[in-house]
Amino acid sequence: MKIGLIGFGKTGKAVASVILQNKNFSLAWVMKKSNTLENRITAEYLGIDSEETGKIYSGESTSMTELLDNQPVDIIIDFSSNDGIYSYGEAAGERKIKIISAISHYTKKEKDFLASLSKMTTVFWSPNITLGVNYLLFAAKFLKKIAPSVDIEIIEEHFKGKDGVSGTAIKIAEALDLEKEDINSLRAGGIVGKHEVVFGFPFQTVRLIHESISREAFGSGVIFVAENLIDKKEGLFNFEDILAPYFIA
Amino acid sequence: MKIGLIGFGKTGKAVASVILQNKNFSLAWVMKKSNTLENRITAEYLGIDSEETGKIYSGESTSMTELLDNQPVDIIIDFSSNDGIYSYGEAAGERKIKIISAISHYTKKEKDFLASLSKMTTVFWSPNITLGVNYLLFAAKFLKKIAPSVDIEIIEEHFKGKDGVSGTAIKIAEALDLEKEDINSLRAGGIVGKHEVVFGFPFQTVRLIHESISREAFGSGVIFVAENLIDKKEGLFNFEDILAPYFIA
Amino acid sequence: MKIGLIGFGKTGKAVASVILQNKNFSLAWVMKKSNTLENRITAEYLGIDSEETGKIYSGESTSMTELLDNQPVDIIIDFSSNDGIYSYGEAAGERKIKIISAISHYTKKEKDFLASLSKMTTVFWSPNITLGVNYLLFAAKFLKKIAPSVDIEIIEEHFKGKDGVSGTAIKIAEALDLEKEDINSLRAGGIVGKHEVVFGFPFQTVRLIHESISREAFGSGVIFVAENLIDKKEGLFNFEDILAPYFIA
Amino acid sequence: MKIGLIGFGKTGKAVASVILQNKNFSLAWVMKKSNTLENRITAEYLGIDSEETGKIYSGESTSMTELLDNQPVDIIIDFSSNDGIYSYGEAAGERKIKIISAISHYTKKEKDFLASLSKMTTVFWSPNITLGVNYLLFAAKFLKKIAPSVDIEIIEEHFKGKDGVSGTAIKIAEALDLEKEDINSLRAGGIVGKHEVVFGFPFQTVRLIHESISREAFGSGVIFVAENLIDKKEGLFNFEDILAPYFIA
Repeated sequence: MKIGLIGFGKTGKAVASVILQNKNFSLAWVMKKSNTLENRITAEYLGIDSEETGKIYSGESTSMTELLDNQPVDIIIDFSSNDGIYSYGEAAGERKIKIISAISHYTKKEKDFLASLSKMTTVFWSPNITLGVNYLLFAAKFLKKIAPSVDIEIIEEHFKGKDGVSGTAIKIAEALDLEKEDINSLRAGGIVGKHEVVFGFPFQTVRLIHESISREAFGSGVIFVAENLIDKKEGLFNFEDILAPYFIA
Repeated sequence: MKIGLIGFGKTGKAVASVILQNKNFSLAWVMKKSNTLENRITAEYLGIDSEETGKIYSGESTSMTELLDNQPVDIIIDFSSNDGIYSYGEAAGERKIKIISAISHYTKKEKDFLASLSKMTTVFWSPNITLGVNYLLFAAKFLKKIAPSVDIEIIEEHFKGKDGVSGTAIKIAEALDLEKEDINSLRAGGIVGKHEVVFGFPFQTVRLIHESISREAFGSGVIFVAENLIDKKEGLFNFEDILAPYFIA
Repeated sequence: MKIGLIGFGKTGKAVASVILQNKNFSLAWVMKKSNTLENRITAEYLGIDSEETGKIYSGESTSMTELLDNQPVDIIIDFSSNDGIYSYGEAAGERKIKIISAISHYTKKEKDFLASLSKMTTVFWSPNITLGVNYLLFAAKFLKKIAPSVDIEIIEEHFKGKDGVSGTAIKIAEALDLEKEDINSLRAGGIVGKHEVVFGFPFQTVRLIHESISREAFGSGVIFVAENLIDKKEGLFNFEDILAPYFIA
Repeated sequence: MKIGLIGFGKTGKAVASVILQNKNFSLAWVMKKSNTLENRITAEYLGIDSEETGKIYSGESTSMTELLDNQPVDIIIDFSSNDGIYSYGEAAGERKIKIISAISHYTKKEKDFLASLSKMTTVFWSPNITLGVNYLLFAAKFLKKIAPSVDIEIIEEHFKGKDGVSGTAIKIAEALDLEKEDINSLRAGGIVGKHEVVFGFPFQTVRLIHESISREAFGSGVIFVAENLIDKKEGLFNFEDILAPYFIA
């Protein structure tokens, strides 16, 4: 399975490194907005020993349709920004290339565009594409269903500089019908990222905890999603759609 | 819904106290092997303000069939010992009284007996009847299904005197195909009971933790199970059978 | 060493039960404001097997000076309310009876009174008399001294009904020069009490955690303090004064 | 304060990056056994923006005495191997250059050599030079002193491949008079490193936890030690010697 990667910021680089080290997927190319790293080879740039080229292209000088025709891929992974989808969406849809987007925030306009693309190809979107956080969300919603009156609080811990409440914590709170006051945000030192959901029962406590070690977790999530989309036809999918069948089986 | 309670040890007493304080269920009577507390009133004995009598009978002087005819109940809860089932099983089955057993260990003989009773009435058995531990087991199995190659270790912590590895930890390990070496048992001070399942991924960690605050957690579990058995017909059920439908719905 | 206990609320009872079970100290009597349990024997009332009488007196019908003369004690432990000190302070001071007060809040007036009593006898006061919380406070202050610029946050978890921010958390925050915003308060289910101090360094994290299992922890704290006051002369002491020498030795 | 660094493995590199980014210390040079990176500039090689040269020398072609005379330093930091000390020890001692060694294991021979060098200059050795682990050790020993009969267990968690019990956990166990059975070792995924000391009291629990985020923690430890050695004369010091004065002051 050949992958094309859109976006090469800190997370994009970490995702590229995971793809380069995976045996079932290969990194065909990277498309970057600016031309600072144009024509560099990803594996070499990241110091990874790999036979894949993973050449870096720049949107400034390379046309997406030409790239897709000259170096066809099975899946496009999007770690760019919220308008990145317009640069490749239609071209991917027409070529039945599967789309996996990990963009944090989309406006209604982009969501509608994703929906229209999903009539042509398989489209997946998750604002946080790590397996752990999505499992946490899923497992927490399930416990809330079992025990609707349980008290729930969220603790999220991140490095000192991080502004605002973590988007993941907000998403968990929304899924569990919690208020913003139920999210406790700690900012200290270099904590990479920790989310804890505390379920307080009268005589027992259940805690679900996710800790990030490094950004490469996003790469593992991409691989997991890609593997689970292989047999999927046209349609719009999110992480819950991917997890639910594991439960039934 | 009227409940009859078999067994009145430490856990039986905690369970009785939870039932006495629940509005949807009433404690009709307690059946105890020895006659030390015979004819005492449970609510009074436990210092709980309640209108229910919950009189304590002794197996030495009271016949189970007479008790069931004079003071009929909807459910029998068994916190006695592994041969307690023989004292009431058949009488309960004939009267279509639902059976909820929380006995830790049954031999094949008792399991077979439960199976035969389940043709006459609703029979439920769970060696650990707390909601939290059963949820943990369920959620952990689900994550293992999603990520079969993840590294898993269990930490269980209990008070200093507790002998051997915790039965709950062993059950979790079996459900996750782990070895005994993967269970880390700590014994220190007065820790009531803590079970933690650590899922180690390359770039992230997920932890599921259950902490017991007090034995009353068994009472809450009994109430939860009883509520979920109300519409059930004849058959043999375990905690997973009770939890699974919450997921589907 | 004979102990007289002032105050017999929930915590007073737990403390009495710990003293009754300790071999180095005996509970001579309990002084209670109201006369509801007058003349009852503490050990019997609490269901503890002990040879000590620990008779319960009421301030309504018994004079403190007579009690101290008829049933002399070495130490008075105060778990009553903030004006309890006036009922026994002077009488204790004159008789060189050591005073251990565990009252949460004193006004300047009581603090001044304690100071004046400390010229006559050994006076100890700690608003939270558990060993664990005081150790936490001590160890946290020490780490802050070593690393003055480290980021610190506090998490405190208690049962759903608990009003306001935990007094212990406030005390920790004051000792570490933190703002109220640095205290994260969770209220869920039946959590007995948990205090966690998170020290975030750029490349590592240190956490100090105290978890209460039951109120009896106050009793253990009293015993620890009493043992450490045995050789003390007149003077006013707090928990830090008791802990510091362990470090030097 | 000028620093010379001996050893440039994974940890040595992380330490160099922390020194390069610290304003009070400068990295004069790095001495490496092999000549693979000879004459490279550390800041450039590590991608750090810094005015310091931090040129890399190789023991194969550069004499230590010449280096120390041509590019004198105030402190030598040793992250090489256990015989590294012989390459610079005497030359450093003669020139009153302070020595900070972070070598994990020394035989008696090296320890004796350190002792003899400590008559000429300030010599510091710590097998784990992070502030957090040393604080943990210190704080744990102190609690054990206060409560000699408390139950203690250690949990250490590391990445899947790590062989044997963690050296730090063994050191903690020795300091607390624990048995090897009291160390619980978990190996899962990519956990960087976590050490937890659990103190179980009858009615409360205290936990001291250290979590590593990255190897740069060793660099912070080096800076902390270097700052605290500035005023020290000849003598042999360990981390406890550095921490203790903070307590007294």
